[in-house]
Amino acid sequence: MKNLADILDLEGAAGPPTERMLQILTEACRLFATRGFDGVSVRDIAQECGISKATLYHHFPDKDAILRPLVMGITRSLHQRVLGAIPSGADPAEKLRAFLTESARFFEDYRWAFIVSSTVFWTDPQARQRRQRIEWRDRHEALLRGILEEGVRSGAFRIADIGMAGRLVLGALNWMPKWYDPKGPLPASAIAEQFHGMLVAGLGAKPGG
Amino acid sequence: MKNLADILDLEGAAGPPTERMLQILTEACRLFATRGFDGVSVRDIAQECGISKATLYHHFPDKDAILRPLVMGITRSLHQRVLGAIPSGADPAEKLRAFLTESARFFEDYRWAFIVSSTVFWTDPQARQRRQRIEWRDRHEALLRGILEEGVRSGAFRIADIGMAGRLVLGALNWMPKWYDPKGPLPASAIAEQFHGMLVAGLGAKPGG
Repeated sequence: MKNLADILDLEGAAGPPTERMLQILTEACRLFATRGFDGVSVRDIAQECGISKATLYHHFPDKDAILRPLVMGITRSLHQRVLGAIPSGADPAEKLRAFLTESARFFEDYRWAFIVSSTVFWTDPQARQRRQRIEWRDRHEALLRGILEEGVRSGAFRIADIGMAGRLVLGALNWMPKWYDPKGPLPASAIAEQFHGMLVAGLGAKPGG
Repeated sequence: MKNLADILDLEGAAGPPTERMLQILTEACRLFATRGFDGVSVRDIAQECGISKATLYHHFPDKDAILRPLVMGITRSLHQRVLGAIPSGADPAEKLRAFLTESARFFEDYRWAFIVSSTVFWTDPQARQRRQRIEWRDRHEALLRGILEEGVRSGAFRIADIGMAGRLVLGALNWMPKWYDPKGPLPASAIAEQFHGMLVAGLGAKPGG
């Protein structure tokens, strides 16, 4: 996993996170991803870092304070990075390809954090952070819908229900963490590339094709 | 949610589950789905049922014993029901439609249990039950791949990588519980119907179409 420091949302922090904070966040992230948020105690995290609970509490008041910068950071950074990767002059099919492949690259770079962010959706403990997070998620979904709408206007796409098409695309993408094997033959972006081809062309054979 | 008794996997049980067992399983299911398996205690479940912890322990030795019949039952029943809904004489596109719509109906009938089964995948506490479950899941994925392969042979589908296409279809389907609103305008099967149309025809406009 790439350096979490690049994506964390340390709301109101005076400066960048210390090495110790980054270590705690990184270890907690891996534990949350594999055992679930509620399956991990502060003691587990401290143990994994080789520090005392007191030292951990010196940096974070509770488990939620560790989860928040991860989940908020992932949701916001995913959106910002994908937004930045979409070539403004390209046609809608190219933009959709960029949406898919850059999402996959992001997932590969921050795999554990992405899984945590995706899994805690149902059990996110603080309503406030959930609201903020939903705002970023909504922006991200609106970005995708914008690409699809542009394609319908330009005649590149034929889509009856933009919202449904967006959910089809996001389902394919967001399900990837459940089965993707980083040691497998294909990088995540190559899989996203294949998904793009199938989503645009469809699985059905074309008459005379 | 429909009666859980129809899908539970009560391995080695002498007879059908008692009313009390069903109540415990149903309440636990809803709690696991909304708070996560590790976020729910035996005390929480007993409280929700209006019984003592001792009464609960009389029926189930621990939390895992409540989770197992749900998760195993869902995974097996989903496969069996979808398998039974696929018309043997139909063409592959029709079979794919039946796979999608019957999965969606099953999800609607057993929404909480489906969410529990999908969510605990990462944190399933007992390796044995996970192995058994993976066998049913593998059979289910093989059923889908079989339909896609049949379509490629018959010329109905044009698919470069059957495994990838299967994951695209399952992603769209399995992501549905994350956003589906039972009070929304469309039943799950109508959404699956739309997904089927988009997956087969593709989002791209056809030349001259």
